[in-house]
Amino acid sequence: MTSLDDLLRAIGVPDRASEEEARRRLDAKTKPPGSLGRLEDVAVQLAGIYGTADLVVEPRAVVVAAADHGVTAQGVNAFPREVTAQMVRNFASGGAAVNVLARLSRASTRIVDFGVDTDAEWPPEVLRRPLGRGTADMTGGPAMSREQAAQGIGTGAGIAAELADEGARVLVTGEMGIGNTTAAAALASVFTGRDPAEVTGPGTGLAPERVARKVEVVRRALASNRPDPGDPLGALAAVGGFEIAGLAGVILGAAAKRRPVVLDGFIAGAAALVAAALRPEVVAFLIAGHRSAEPGHRAVLERLGLAPLLELDMRLGEGTGALLALPVLDAAAAIVREMATFESAGVAGAF
Amino acid sequence: MTSLDDLLRAIGVPDRASEEEARRRLDAKTKPPGSLGRLEDVAVQLAGIYGTADLVVEPRAVVVAAADHGVTAQGVNAFPREVTAQMVRNFASGGAAVNVLARLSRASTRIVDFGVDTDAEWPPEVLRRPLGRGTADMTGGPAMSREQAAQGIGTGAGIAAELADEGARVLVTGEMGIGNTTAAAALASVFTGRDPAEVTGPGTGLAPERVARKVEVVRRALASNRPDPGDPLGALAAVGGFEIAGLAGVILGAAAKRRPVVLDGFIAGAAALVAAALRPEVVAFLIAGHRSAEPGHRAVLERLGLAPLLELDMRLGEGTGALLALPVLDAAAAIVREMATFESAGVAGAF
Repeated sequence: MTSLDDLLRAIGVPDRASEEEARRRLDAKTKPPGSLGRLEDVAVQLAGIYGTADLVVEPRAVVVAAADHGVTAQGVNAFPREVTAQMVRNFASGGAAVNVLARLSRASTRIVDFGVDTDAEWPPEVLRRPLGRGTADMTGGPAMSREQAAQGIGTGAGIAAELADEGARVLVTGEMGIGNTTAAAALASVFTGRDPAEVTGPGTGLAPERVARKVEVVRRALASNRPDPGDPLGALAAVGGFEIAGLAGVILGAAAKRRPVVLDGFIAGAAALVAAALRPEVVAFLIAGHRSAEPGHRAVLERLGLAPLLELDMRLGEGTGALLALPVLDAAAAIVREMATFESAGVAGAF
Repeated sequence: MTSLDDLLRAIGVPDRASEEEARRRLDAKTKPPGSLGRLEDVAVQLAGIYGTADLVVEPRAVVVAAADHGVTAQGVNAFPREVTAQMVRNFASGGAAVNVLARLSRASTRIVDFGVDTDAEWPPEVLRRPLGRGTADMTGGPAMSREQAAQGIGTGAGIAAELADEGARVLVTGEMGIGNTTAAAALASVFTGRDPAEVTGPGTGLAPERVARKVEVVRRALASNRPDPGDPLGALAAVGGFEIAGLAGVILGAAAKRRPVVLDGFIAGAAALVAAALRPEVVAFLIAGHRSAEPGHRAVLERLGLAPLLELDMRLGEGTGALLALPVLDAAAAIVREMATFESAGVAGAF
């Protein structure tokens, strides 16, 4: 495993010549210039990332990072803590929403235990990379040590690198962890500067009065740890989750390999905030798959400067919103690759 | 061909029991209730349309309706009139954006000449159903006769019925016709009650000063014809296009066969306004694939009461935005069909 510094240094910038080449090809196609809107922007972004306008966006893989959270002791979740492990098992047997949408979008699924609190043996589909048995309760001190945070990033980056080396052209973030919207809300508050009340929401379905309690839990975690956005690793250790550390690593590792990362919702956004605080250049490699119904996600995407491709009121996580956006990447690539030009089709241009 | 009255009478209402069954199945899946947002709404809508919660959304077909417009004589288009025929040829040889996206979305393509102004022979891929050689200039009188309008609807409905009988589970609207955003703007003004300035836009790329001229052309067409929203066939004849009549027929014919129709952008929306004015029940069979960048499309969708699935600043037409939305239908159907339940997966429910 390379050091965090090496990882960050490996992240470059998009290739402007390939972006221009993609734009040139798009403008020659039988359509008014720019009339395919964000499809064209995505095509140009992909060209810059890959360093070629010959766009290939398959195969792709979704990394589903799972872990438990000490903050569940504060009673701010709609589902019991055991559901994390139960859902990991559901992922392994292919019955969860992420599996269904991964199959549809032709993405392979890499399920990673970054620290689920369970005694059970995992089925072989689950990669064991635990940083612990769930984080500590962040209201009473840091959720994890700096070393654990760095280890999670390194592990995530290693998984992304491995997937890229195996051929993955697009990486997708997925996650599972009862309690992780609380951790994500705390990180969102740290990195956007918003008040916890603005970035804390119902997660998977908390009643309004319990959301108010969740806001207080985030406030206490921030008061107890005083995380500093100028020290991203420290902030991640203070209030983050193991799976969020892992996803920050996936994001950084993919960018280092010049692979686009399609972000899912609020949790992925929190991981991206950490990654971007560590290395601002990483944002050029990110595509916001969707905007989730979780209210804080808007602030996260604004801070990252990303416009979501889809907005379908989804709030499940797991990677579902990001996977549903993959057809937009397919379309962007196919347009550049397959459409006729005005010249080849004998069509007159604009007046 | 059945009469227009018979066609309209054949359009029923969604099956509430199948909608409830779909909702029940969704609520048993391993996810917080409603957490897949609009995917779940689409699944419920499809169940109501098909009359079963066993959702099958393939095969599907896009009808690309093409025609020319007399209003092009007013100089309100970014592209010359010959482009309609040239693009129909491009569709036939598979090089246009609609072909690329239809292949990606596994939709078959039915290209229909509803009245393109050309002497050329079409390749065999193009179905010849012309109502004339382009409409008359609507600024000097009606664009077509009531008989032509009714014939266009009947022809479109017949094509939809044929596709449904051949097995198509989903119909998608596509179109081509230099000048048709002007016709659509006039229809949008008639059926939404908005001023032409509010619903007339740049189309495929008109400069702002020419958009102002286009608004005046729409005003003159409305002043010259005084179309009455209470007489939808008359309004369609006055300011519509042949391909818009055809698409109104496709929409009504699909609904009569209990098939969902995924609408593309502004032109499809204008056709849907005509269809809904003729038979309000048809709206339950419609899915707005996307909201186009054409400003009047927002008013059209509001009038129809439809929320678009995608909003990607596309403004090409042809059916591209609707085709790009088909993966959302695939996902909705797959979720109902393939996801595990809390019981089958052994996952605990919410507190």
